[in-house]
Amino acid sequence: MAGSSRSDNQKRNAMSKPSDNFHIYDTTLRDGAQQEGLNLSVHDKLTIAKHLDDLGVGFIEGGWPGANPRDTEFFKRAAKEITFNHATIVAFGATRRAGVRAADDALLQALRDSQAPVVTLVAKSHDRHVELALKTDLKENLAMIRDSIKFLIEGGQRVFLDAEHFFDGYRDNRKYALEVVRTAADAGADVIALCDTNGGMLPDQISEITHEILSSTSARLGIHCHNDTGCAVANSLAAVSAGATHVQGTLNGYGERTGNADLVSIIANLQLKKKQQVLPEGKLEEAFRISHAVAEVTNVAPSARQPYVGISAFAHKAGLHASAIKVDPSLYQHEDPSSVGNDMRMLVSDMAGRASVELKSQELGVEIGSNKEAVSRVVERVKELEQRGYTFEAADASFELLLREEIDGQRAKFFTIKSWETVVDKNEAGEVSSRASITILARGRTLEATGNGNGPVNALDNALRSGLEQIYPELKRLELTDYKVRILEGNAGTDAVTRVLIETSNGESEWSTVGVHENVIMASAMALEEALTYGLLGMGTKPE
Amino acid sequence: MAGSSRSDNQKRNAMSKPSDNFHIYDTTLRDGAQQEGLNLSVHDKLTIAKHLDDLGVGFIEGGWPGANPRDTEFFKRAAKEITFNHATIVAFGATRRAGVRAADDALLQALRDSQAPVVTLVAKSHDRHVELALKTDLKENLAMIRDSIKFLIEGGQRVFLDAEHFFDGYRDNRKYALEVVRTAADAGADVIALCDTNGGMLPDQISEITHEILSSTSARLGIHCHNDTGCAVANSLAAVSAGATHVQGTLNGYGERTGNADLVSIIANLQLKKKQQVLPEGKLEEAFRISHAVAEVTNVAPSARQPYVGISAFAHKAGLHASAIKVDPSLYQHEDPSSVGNDMRMLVSDMAGRASVELKSQELGVEIGSNKEAVSRVVERVKELEQRGYTFEAADASFELLLREEIDGQRAKFFTIKSWETVVDKNEAGEVSSRASITILARGRTLEATGNGNGPVNALDNALRSGLEQIYPELKRLELTDYKVRILEGNAGTDAVTRVLIETSNGESEWSTVGVHENVIMASAMALEEALTYGLLGMGTKPE
Repeated sequence: MAGSSRSDNQKRNAMSKPSDNFHIYDTTLRDGAQQEGLNLSVHDKLTIAKHLDDLGVGFIEGGWPGANPRDTEFFKRAAKEITFNHATIVAFGATRRAGVRAADDALLQALRDSQAPVVTLVAKSHDRHVELALKTDLKENLAMIRDSIKFLIEGGQRVFLDAEHFFDGYRDNRKYALEVVRTAADAGADVIALCDTNGGMLPDQISEITHEILSSTSARLGIHCHNDTGCAVANSLAAVSAGATHVQGTLNGYGERTGNADLVSIIANLQLKKKQQVLPEGKLEEAFRISHAVAEVTNVAPSARQPYVGISAFAHKAGLHASAIKVDPSLYQHEDPSSVGNDMRMLVSDMAGRASVELKSQELGVEIGSNKEAVSRVVERVKELEQRGYTFEAADASFELLLREEIDGQRAKFFTIKSWETVVDKNEAGEVSSRASITILARGRTLEATGNGNGPVNALDNALRSGLEQIYPELKRLELTDYKVRILEGNAGTDAVTRVLIETSNGESEWSTVGVHENVIMASAMALEEALTYGLLGMGTKPE
Repeated sequence: MAGSSRSDNQKRNAMSKPSDNFHIYDTTLRDGAQQEGLNLSVHDKLTIAKHLDDLGVGFIEGGWPGANPRDTEFFKRAAKEITFNHATIVAFGATRRAGVRAADDALLQALRDSQAPVVTLVAKSHDRHVELALKTDLKENLAMIRDSIKFLIEGGQRVFLDAEHFFDGYRDNRKYALEVVRTAADAGADVIALCDTNGGMLPDQISEITHEILSSTSARLGIHCHNDTGCAVANSLAAVSAGATHVQGTLNGYGERTGNADLVSIIANLQLKKKQQVLPEGKLEEAFRISHAVAEVTNVAPSARQPYVGISAFAHKAGLHASAIKVDPSLYQHEDPSSVGNDMRMLVSDMAGRASVELKSQELGVEIGSNKEAVSRVVERVKELEQRGYTFEAADASFELLLREEIDGQRAKFFTIKSWETVVDKNEAGEVSSRASITILARGRTLEATGNGNGPVNALDNALRSGLEQIYPELKRLELTDYKVRILEGNAGTDAVTRVLIETSNGESEWSTVGVHENVIMASAMALEEALTYGLLGMGTKPE
């Protein structure tokens, strides 16, 4: 089962903290969440943090505790609920307010209280911003930087500094921008990240300025880019080439306006092109899976054209290239797609190849590699189902059921849902109620059951369980923990369909299942059926 | 009015062929059309060609006449139907086959017959490709290049050469790659475009190699990049900085795999950042309009995060930024959005405050700035509603209804939903059906209606409209165009709630509304109610 292989992975990777010589610093949960239309709950943020740790990034900036109640809760829960194998969690915040002692600044105190081992402080480094936006004077801004860094270090935290609008500031007043870097370094900040906050820079400027700062100070530099000129990845690489040893970005390039620098592209370029190992060994191969799993959480449709991990990134329109690719794929591919967990595709549609089926089976701890025919059948079925709107990237349990079905020749079956009905109504008093009734066949018995809930799916779920628990009382341990719905536009004349992803927990581990149908309730019923089937299998219950 | 200034522009720019000193070369119709899922009819290609000419590009590569009947027809019709004000049309094709005289090669003859004033020939410049893909020898490949160029020039056409896989080839066998460039230049090709066909290059490599070629030959160089490392724009700029004077790309970065270099970003960076005028005066301001118009033709959903012309490219979310933007927009924008025909937008979110409410109201054309109390009430209500799970970033119409309610002291009301019921069932035969009934009060009348649909919300929507259309027949024009559902975990002990976003269209414009409730059907009913209310207001219907 998935559970056991996952725990093996955990053991293998346990405590392999990346070297401090070079930082991959992720700010998906803070700066990435500024993207239009992207709204993350605390639960979403915890899930993404686990994925980021799984990718092997060095630092995860979790948010701004104290400024935002949701972020305060995130830090509390992350400390309790997640054991990070690779990453260090980072709290983000601003320097103290003007004219206030650091010890009296409630927001600085909240950063200390977050107990995050690292705090990244944002500070103004552009003189005009100090005067017009911060409305204080240049000297006081330097004092704010110095005091805030010292206050946090005294409390036992490591401090990085985000020098906001650094490149614009350096253009307007290089002496002052440089003084900000020196002040922060002297006060004890370990890294000064030069930020192209407005995103207007080009690589040659980034390179030149980074060089200049490194030759004028002994500060350790980082880089933080936005994609407003379409050059965020190249700008980040330019700074690294110039000597920056800390690079910030977001997964899939999420972020305000045109987004932040896409960390996946940066990492792949550094490891594959520059031969600089920046993730733990073997982790880059997880990039495709993690990029897509996070896209399911953010509910932002992944870009097919995303470098390295887009589903089109290694897709070739058959024709001129086809025969040459057969001779030697490297003739028409800049990298082996498996280096990032992606796959070459010759035709439009499927995103599963044999390699990824085998890889995923290994990951789930299911032996299939030697069974070539079963692999072929799984590939075919995944192709056909994905064509219809299924996704297995974020539905491991549904994939595992399919995999086992093709190996065993039949699907594990504990029950059959015969029929159901859900009713939701609002009466004149404004009260809304939901109820469901269901008929199930299990172990030769016909079970009739009803349920209420705060919506039709919840009512149906309750009815299904209350019926099945008569036969499988162990189902009481399971809980539906997340429910996601996406409407998928129809392809080639077909109607739109609804895809439902359900996450279920038994208190120890969680699993996800998928259902697709034009009717949302039916799609949900399909995902529920698989969720309970997988749960029963995992508890060792014998199928019918 | 925008209209009159546009026609003035047209007159001013009529017949202003761009200077030959620097080429903006568009290959949307040929290389861009290789994108997965992108299929262009001849009519589509003609429409896009007109848009490209309107943008003021110097060259439009139309396709491969002779190799593809659709492209042959395109060249015929373009010659008859389009008067290009700025652009020169270019035919694309390959060098002659191995062992055949140029005059006997049917495809070369077709290029001549296309009567395109310019032909771009693609040629192999990577030794391994000559041997493995072309299956000929290195010497014959040079002869093919020489003969083909001379044949076309003798027929009166200007010739450019695409040196395919140039950078990979130069890495493996620089002597041969260089010989290809020299041979083409000596035979009379006006431009040799160095192609990063597999897209694996980074800017420093492009820069270095372009420099080397320019110091070893007197050829005029161009650049053709793909985005596989996420650096296509930066790579193109690196080549231009190194001395290339011809840059190829596609509109919106369309293209195979991760796409070609986005011509819009390249042009905007050259003009706005490098102060190099590459389009006719006043044309860059058309970029937003043309980028989106072409996206309508290709039917590829535009990326909100596209640099310069994405709808999010100048959208601001953070409250921290909003107050500074009021002081001076240039503090938080790398360029004036109007320089590319785009617009600044303020997103209302819980990170926002008074400043962003005021800016957002201005944008919606609602006067509230002077009404300090109304602003305060709106800020308070937005905070409170967002705490409960609402989002207004993607629900402009709901925000505008709230805004008007606080200004007018009451909400515009056209109807009241008294009660409703939705039923979804699956029978033993496996058939799923959905139906709804509803009671509405409007203009003093009680309306009863029913509806069916492919899900409970669709059924409820149909019931609601079929009832209301008795009184407001203008509702027939409205259509529900998108429906999104998100389950939000409850904060601080509250139950989970469901957020529904609905997009509605009247055929001319679209608007979005939001509903939040623990019950998904009720949340949908709320969003539907606001969608129809906003639609009726917009059509000038008087509230009750």
